[in-house]
Amino acid sequence: MPHLTFEYTDNLRADGDIPGLLKKANAALIAQGGVFPVGGIRSRAICHSEYCIADGDGDGDADYAFVHATLKIGFGRSEAEKNAACEDLFAMMKAHFAAIAAERYLALSLEIAEFSEADTWKQNNIHTRFRKA
Amino acid sequence: MPHLTFEYTDNLRADGDIPGLLKKANAALIAQGGVFPVGGIRSRAICHSEYCIADGDGDGDADYAFVHATLKIGFGRSEAEKNAACEDLFAMMKAHFAAIAAERYLALSLEIAEFSEADTWKQNNIHTRFRKA
Amino acid sequence: MPHLTFEYTDNLRADGDIPGLLKKANAALIAQGGVFPVGGIRSRAICHSEYCIADGDGDGDADYAFVHATLKIGFGRSEAEKNAACEDLFAMMKAHFAAIAAERYLALSLEIAEFSEADTWKQNNIHTRFRKA
Repeated sequence: MPHLTFEYTDNLRADGDIPGLLKKANAALIAQGGVFPVGGIRSRAICHSEYCIADGDGDGDADYAFVHATLKIGFGRSEAEKNAACEDLFAMMKAHFAAIAAERYLALSLEIAEFSEADTWKQNNIHTRFRKA
Repeated sequence: MPHLTFEYTDNLRADGDIPGLLKKANAALIAQGGVFPVGGIRSRAICHSEYCIADGDGDGDADYAFVHATLKIGFGRSEAEKNAACEDLFAMMKAHFAAIAAERYLALSLEIAEFSEADTWKQNNIHTRFRKA
Repeated sequence: MPHLTFEYTDNLRADGDIPGLLKKANAALIAQGGVFPVGGIRSRAICHSEYCIADGDGDGDADYAFVHATLKIGFGRSEAEKNAACEDLFAMMKAHFAAIAAERYLALSLEIAEFSEADTWKQNNIHTRFRKA
């Protein structure tokens, strides 16, 4: 934990700098003052090539795009901690896509979901790297 | 909102008409009498090429397929509104795949999930297009 | 139901034997004494080629990998049944990836989620195959 997933439409592939987005996302989570252990942060992006947005560009002059992020975290953070992490992540997303949003139709969204420790099984030796450091 | 995701197995790619499925899905949501703002509808499909269904075609004479849809919506619709949207979506899915289901093993499913407004961050300029219209 | 999804990083593609993982997963669920009808089991894997783990391999000498499994099941199983299924699945995952985990940084995780019957629509003719058998 946490797991972060960015879904994005393939019309953002050329200009969206998804590798940069992923690095900024991890940096934003690491910057939350230890709320999220570094070794547990896993961000990934899924590029969609099959999608239909709104009216499906019915009249041919629109070219909609979206980025939807889902942050799944383990149980136990305070509301303030969760809110701060999401505010920072979403501010980063808006800044990252600001130039694109100024030029085209773009929907950005972020959701957070939490599960209880009881519902999760884990084995992660990446943590050892950061405990040693 | 809403976000609709269709997962499907790649043995449906040739005959499944996924672009048509996505268009029908958006049309079905738009037809819910304004329950879902047009500019917020985002449907996508994920084609799976690595999967195992039931007994994994153990004896070699079956070729299972599935389509699983997940509809995620914002908080605030009534039970009747949510149920009507899902009934219409699933009726569309059954009709869309009726010819295939008559000829092969096919599992269709639809789930709905809802999150509170408090758990979502949004910035969407697609709405402006539909407010202007 | 149930739906099982394995997400994995593409640096596991060569050695991860994902087809074998999927077959073992279905076998583990089938072995739960009828808790999960055979015809409803749908497992799939998603290979991620865009991801960032922990510090993003900042110093260049790490090569992180992860496998994250999500088991979604219908309503009605007991806590003991759910726990046994997850324990068996995760034990299988640890065994499957044991050689890899001994050699590299690898995070394995499994979560379980459940939804009510009221939130699901289904049509599945795969069940007929197993009722006939």
